[in-house]
Amino acid sequence: MSDSVQPHRRQPNRLRRPWDSPGKKVLIVYAHQEPRSLNGSLKDVAVAELSQQGCTVTVSDLYAMNFEPRATGKDITGTLSNPGFFNYGVETHKAYEKRSLSSDITEEQKKLQEADLVIFQFPLYWFSVPAVLKGWMDRVLCQGFAFDFPGSYDDGFLKGKLAILSLTTGGTASMYSKTGVNGDFRYFLWPLQHGTLHFCGFNVLAPQISFGPEMASEEERKGMVASWAQRLKTIWEEEPIQCSHPWYFGQ
Amino acid sequence: MSDSVQPHRRQPNRLRRPWDSPGKKVLIVYAHQEPRSLNGSLKDVAVAELSQQGCTVTVSDLYAMNFEPRATGKDITGTLSNPGFFNYGVETHKAYEKRSLSSDITEEQKKLQEADLVIFQFPLYWFSVPAVLKGWMDRVLCQGFAFDFPGSYDDGFLKGKLAILSLTTGGTASMYSKTGVNGDFRYFLWPLQHGTLHFCGFNVLAPQISFGPEMASEEERKGMVASWAQRLKTIWEEEPIQCSHPWYFGQ
Repeated sequence: MSDSVQPHRRQPNRLRRPWDSPGKKVLIVYAHQEPRSLNGSLKDVAVAELSQQGCTVTVSDLYAMNFEPRATGKDITGTLSNPGFFNYGVETHKAYEKRSLSSDITEEQKKLQEADLVIFQFPLYWFSVPAVLKGWMDRVLCQGFAFDFPGSYDDGFLKGKLAILSLTTGGTASMYSKTGVNGDFRYFLWPLQHGTLHFCGFNVLAPQISFGPEMASEEERKGMVASWAQRLKTIWEEEPIQCSHPWYFGQ
Repeated sequence: MSDSVQPHRRQPNRLRRPWDSPGKKVLIVYAHQEPRSLNGSLKDVAVAELSQQGCTVTVSDLYAMNFEPRATGKDITGTLSNPGFFNYGVETHKAYEKRSLSSDITEEQKKLQEADLVIFQFPLYWFSVPAVLKGWMDRVLCQGFAFDFPGSYDDGFLKGKLAILSLTTGGTASMYSKTGVNGDFRYFLWPLQHGTLHFCGFNVLAPQISFGPEMASEEERKGMVASWAQRLKTIWEEEPIQCSHPWYFGQ
């Protein structure tokens, strides 16, 4: 992991805070097809470590659930507000208010509502999340539930919750540097961390990026898993990033 | 449309070039649920204008096709290379070489291979494409077909083709400015234009952004459609953007 994504720690001699780990609820939204992949190991070690701390951990295993990514009229049960002109955002907003969203959406919203910390565990696909996880964001984070107008960014409805992206890349860390072919890794984080998580009010923790596991040795991959497990031991002490323009693009 | 996304024109008194419009092939990858939406109108006017120019226009209407967004083992017909450990990138690369990708992928690859220009028409969902379109990118643009190592960015396998993002936003142009809450619109284009299209070798034309149609008047929406139709009249004369760091984030 690059030094620049090292998390900030809260002061060690602090009083016990309400967000300390025992009793905390964690949701892991997991998007990998292969349980024995590095993503699978990172998810498993997070479940183990956080459970051991006394947290309640729930995993949404999107491929195993065959989670629907497409945003369609099927997401609204019962009658549409305007059957002659389908507007997904308007219809799902109204359906949320009327409690008539499809059950796969409401089940995820319930998990999210209860969570203190949400971990997104995924391999980077095209500088972003795999479509199955994009569909989770498109469908679960609907207006009325996750945000409204007013009610976005620092006033987003999921404020008070923590979120962290834990992802693997195909390229190496140097390829994702300012002078690398892929540009700084922070650039591709903007739509996800700022445009999605911060927009909904989350406090975003520094990302956990496991660079290039397929080019790494077995020992190095084990180091990536161990590093994540180690970080999770003190995850509740971390300060969120300042999720605004300078963090991503400099001054 | 913001001034800053105005396309550059080639010199008007040029000789006739091989990319002039008659006989050109255009693929429109379209992701909206409602035919009568602004996205639907923008797609329709592009079909009409480009057909009128003598182009052959093909539309992939992803919602109407119920296009599968999830990247799974079903994308490979026949035997997996390693059934005991599923690696999507490795398996689809090998399946591409062995011509054993699923037919919905190969049909899109054929359309793409034949196209001189690809237009992506979609509403912005979470600073990115809707999941159904993300799935098209995840599944269709596989290694071996769209890129390889070496064979990315300027050497990507789709080089020589043009691509353009035509998108609608929820927010206004001022919200997508450097000082706006959503940051400059160019920031969210980075993963799509650079990390995906440029990575595969496309020459990227300036985006066509229709800002905030739901907050606009009917007349303003008609203006957005007319503006797109007008631009398409001379689309073959446009120079691609310089798709690298400074275009997105400044010097």
